[in-house]
Amino acid sequence: MKKKIRAIQYGIGPIGASIVKLLREKQSIEIIGAIDTDPAKVGRDLGEVVGASDAPWGVKVSADAAEVLGLAADVVMHTTSSSLPKVMDQLLACLEAESCVVSTCEELSYPYRTYPELSAKLDTAAKEWGVALVGTGVNPGFVMDKLAITLGAVSQRIDHAKALRIVDASKRRLPLQKKIGAGLSVEEFRARVKEGTIKHVGLPESVAMVADSLGLAVDEITETIEPKVATEKVVTEFLSVEPGQAAGVHQIARGLAGGKELIYMELQMYVGAKDPADTITLTGHPNISLTIPGGSHGDIATASVAVNSIPVILSSPAGLRTSRDLPIGFFAPTAKP
Amino acid sequence: MKKKIRAIQYGIGPIGASIVKLLREKQSIEIIGAIDTDPAKVGRDLGEVVGASDAPWGVKVSADAAEVLGLAADVVMHTTSSSLPKVMDQLLACLEAESCVVSTCEELSYPYRTYPELSAKLDTAAKEWGVALVGTGVNPGFVMDKLAITLGAVSQRIDHAKALRIVDASKRRLPLQKKIGAGLSVEEFRARVKEGTIKHVGLPESVAMVADSLGLAVDEITETIEPKVATEKVVTEFLSVEPGQAAGVHQIARGLAGGKELIYMELQMYVGAKDPADTITLTGHPNISLTIPGGSHGDIATASVAVNSIPVILSSPAGLRTSRDLPIGFFAPTAKP
Repeated sequence: MKKKIRAIQYGIGPIGASIVKLLREKQSIEIIGAIDTDPAKVGRDLGEVVGASDAPWGVKVSADAAEVLGLAADVVMHTTSSSLPKVMDQLLACLEAESCVVSTCEELSYPYRTYPELSAKLDTAAKEWGVALVGTGVNPGFVMDKLAITLGAVSQRIDHAKALRIVDASKRRLPLQKKIGAGLSVEEFRARVKEGTIKHVGLPESVAMVADSLGLAVDEITETIEPKVATEKVVTEFLSVEPGQAAGVHQIARGLAGGKELIYMELQMYVGAKDPADTITLTGHPNISLTIPGGSHGDIATASVAVNSIPVILSSPAGLRTSRDLPIGFFAPTAKP
Repeated sequence: MKKKIRAIQYGIGPIGASIVKLLREKQSIEIIGAIDTDPAKVGRDLGEVVGASDAPWGVKVSADAAEVLGLAADVVMHTTSSSLPKVMDQLLACLEAESCVVSTCEELSYPYRTYPELSAKLDTAAKEWGVALVGTGVNPGFVMDKLAITLGAVSQRIDHAKALRIVDASKRRLPLQKKIGAGLSVEEFRARVKEGTIKHVGLPESVAMVADSLGLAVDEITETIEPKVATEKVVTEFLSVEPGQAAGVHQIARGLAGGKELIYMELQMYVGAKDPADTITLTGHPNISLTIPGGSHGDIATASVAVNSIPVILSSPAGLRTSRDLPIGFFAPTAKP
């Protein structure tokens, strides 16, 4: 009998919940534990917490990370925070438990420039314990970086790389609509940006990954966050936005070499977005572009990319990996017996 | 001083020529030998044979493969034939010389279904000699297979995969325009298909790679080749096609499971093609598609993919590899000193 992959879910927010539901569909995976500190979730059945139709699953959510990690899973699916410094102890605990880690922590996706010491520490710990970890998701981790790097395979010379992602947040979860400031006045929006609570995290990581992968000698990465101001009223399931209010974020990150732009990444994520799409444009020899009409759906795609990374991280050499290194693809469910 | 990658070019047709010209641009590569049996090339300087502006390069084309391979290159760029049985001895000789191989032999791109014994033989030999080989290019190797598999990363479930590649052969090299039957009568075209001289090789290999990578349990692969008939006169640099004559090929390959289609690949390669583009469509959860407007240019892209595969094949575990396994990307030129 083939041994199943034993998985632990660490963090059961919206992304964690959609990951465990997808894990549950893979016949080759057994969910052996779940960690969350939310008192509303602790002690309850994981299937019930995530609203699965086949609950209960017989796996209880626990706040005792050490105890759950002690089950020594093959892989921990980690979805607790965008901030690498905040999750360092969690990640190190996973590695010490000799489990591989797939994390959606955006800052882990390509941490070398912003956090060289933390990167080295994670790489060393992973190698010491003989396991591998990766930070991934749809963005960062796929659409603005991995896909651009993959498209680079048909290029003989690359002078400039551009990624444009336009996301219609209308049908996304409430926390996301709030996170992007939908419904705020422009002043409130700017205040929230200043205090750090409105931001899509990960553009500089994508710029750095693309720079290093396409040989673009970027020495400076800049980032701006502006409100995308609504020009007409937008009503979603959760909230409504008046003309003149912020409908979401408009972020631009640039990779510069001696002040010259080599990489341009633009993210528009707002409710009521027209023509959502993901577009990569490489200028060089030849010029080439690629479009995903409609764009890749953020929540579905992040869970997909994370779960689809399991086979590759399990077969990867020990250490800190990035989606740049991994032959990312689809993790087919094994046929039901 | 960093050691350069020592490369040998095996086969100096149009693709081989464009590969060596690209190799020449990479500061980290040193071309140490070149093999071809064409008397018009043997004994001449490689740079002159390929029409390089900086010729001579000081590397002579030789017909003595054993002698050149004896130089023990790090990698051999192999571009002699589409047929795996025809190139087996060449590939085995490269492996025995302890060189990694990047080959544009289409049937090597995913040889497991058509040639299981030859695949096993190559894998065993590569492991015995501690080197790796891969068959790759733009198609097969990238646009209809690797790109589809990569896009699969954002999918939670995949029910059907489709790849459509429309290539305008008008500006391609003469051998290609002839190979696709441009300018033949429909009868001549069909006769050439029957004798096996008109065919783009590689669709079944792409279907098999996609099937195995996306978990689509294909048990039968079919392929048809029809002429794309010109509806108006088309004049290229090399030839002209009258209405009613063949303008090129229209090939369709299908992957079936119990008679049901799970994979559909369509290649239209003809002179005067309207709206050339590469399009991948995955049906499942979610439905997602991707388009490269204009399509990836066959000759430029095949040389790119082959040369860009050098760093990954050199760092790959020994054995027979495919573009499915490799994190394909761009091979940046090192800065000029």
